[in-house]
Amino acid sequence: MTTVILLGAGNVATHLYKAFSTAENISVTQWYNRTRESIKTYANEVEITDSLDELKEADLYIMAVSDDSIEQLSKDLPFTNRLVAHTSGSVSMHALDKKNDIAVFYPLQTFSKDAEITFSEVPICIEAIDKDHRKFLKTLANDLGCKSYKISTSQRQSLHLAAVFVNNFTNQLYRIGHEICESKSVEFEILKPLIQETAKKVQEMSPYRAQTGPARRNDKKTIKRQLKLIENEEHKTIYEVLTDSIKRTHGFPPTPKRRVKKDQE
Amino acid sequence: MTTVILLGAGNVATHLYKAFSTAENISVTQWYNRTRESIKTYANEVEITDSLDELKEADLYIMAVSDDSIEQLSKDLPFTNRLVAHTSGSVSMHALDKKNDIAVFYPLQTFSKDAEITFSEVPICIEAIDKDHRKFLKTLANDLGCKSYKISTSQRQSLHLAAVFVNNFTNQLYRIGHEICESKSVEFEILKPLIQETAKKVQEMSPYRAQTGPARRNDKKTIKRQLKLIENEEHKTIYEVLTDSIKRTHGFPPTPKRRVKKDQE
Repeated sequence: MTTVILLGAGNVATHLYKAFSTAENISVTQWYNRTRESIKTYANEVEITDSLDELKEADLYIMAVSDDSIEQLSKDLPFTNRLVAHTSGSVSMHALDKKNDIAVFYPLQTFSKDAEITFSEVPICIEAIDKDHRKFLKTLANDLGCKSYKISTSQRQSLHLAAVFVNNFTNQLYRIGHEICESKSVEFEILKPLIQETAKKVQEMSPYRAQTGPARRNDKKTIKRQLKLIENEEHKTIYEVLTDSIKRTHGFPPTPKRRVKKDQE
Repeated sequence: MTTVILLGAGNVATHLYKAFSTAENISVTQWYNRTRESIKTYANEVEITDSLDELKEADLYIMAVSDDSIEQLSKDLPFTNRLVAHTSGSVSMHALDKKNDIAVFYPLQTFSKDAEITFSEVPICIEAIDKDHRKFLKTLANDLGCKSYKISTSQRQSLHLAAVFVNNFTNQLYRIGHEICESKSVEFEILKPLIQETAKKVQEMSPYRAQTGPARRNDKKTIKRQLKLIENEEHKTIYEVLTDSIKRTHGFPPTPKRRVKKDQE
């Protein structure tokens, strides 16, 4: 049985707790947070504490705390030579105090309070100095039913950046779709199957091959007509920037720039 | 039994043919295309023709042809007072010649040759002058198992624009994610569950509520660090434009502009 102690109480910590506590070979023996308040609902299932001095021994300490707290919290740990991993996409492994063995256990997924997640579908990015620790974390990911990948700090930071594009920025494009629909009293509902199909397509096919639409075809008439249709200046800029990006990817010259009126410059 | 004659041989026509020919109450009695070549594989299932003069009588003629061909083809039809619908997202219903009864039957989905589609999940946008024709097309959509929506030309054009944002532009963000991964020899594979989850989330929750990440939190440190990480100028511009868009949506001031060197202006 692998014993794990969890530190932190945010979305990642909570999802990790649920995944760990349902896995057969893993036991969460303690859950630490700065304040007991946010984890007290779990007090009947797991020992909770708000004092670092009360931390017991365990095979692994997982720090699922905010990026800014990682360094200080790792310094504050009152023990040495134990395995400590953080779960951040962007913080260097070396932000962790070297009095302990350090590692990263980064689950690449979007976690929210409300949305349920099938944790076994979450890829885990693993980093460690020691080969045995990497193997240990790989087994842990495996026990959760997850695929895991050996990823360096620099690779992880790029993955995290790529995740901002495919998740946060994509979601903002959904938001703009929502705004366009609302402005014409059309139900956003109608776009939902398209949103799912677009995401499904690239599970099998490269995004390069999956591309369709006016920019992919270099269909100047439709592009011009659509630009005229857009009332919101910000939407217009995003339309232009992404249309040019698609064109460049597929070997077409960029759209000639709009003439901006002097007073808008 | 509703009789339908299909005109055109592109992706939409082919997917419509398959959906119509498996529906119980619908019979495709003829399939026209300019050249027989592209539809000849279906010749053993359906009568095919390349001559408009050979077109028979039917309850509905569906023109699934390119936007630019709709007007001329509708003029060339050698009959009057029959129901003719096009399937375009952006062409006005009134591009169709008024010697026939005109309508629009627009399936809002991304159709490619290779990707299989569950047609019953495709929303159909319907427009017609006559109320009975609208009802007829609604029943037709229903026979395909599809939800249908009464949508005006102006609403349909906005939907088509919104579709470019949530489909083509989103797919380009996937492409950029792919490029970032490749540049660091990381498998794009790792991002696929995140891509699916992002699309799944907005099936239940508004994109506004679903948003997470550095821009949503106005996390200036991470934004600055990620901007430094981006090597490609185009990716940088897209990062800035979409970060500012998220910030504006959620009530934060935009990021101060980068200083652009004189020779880059």
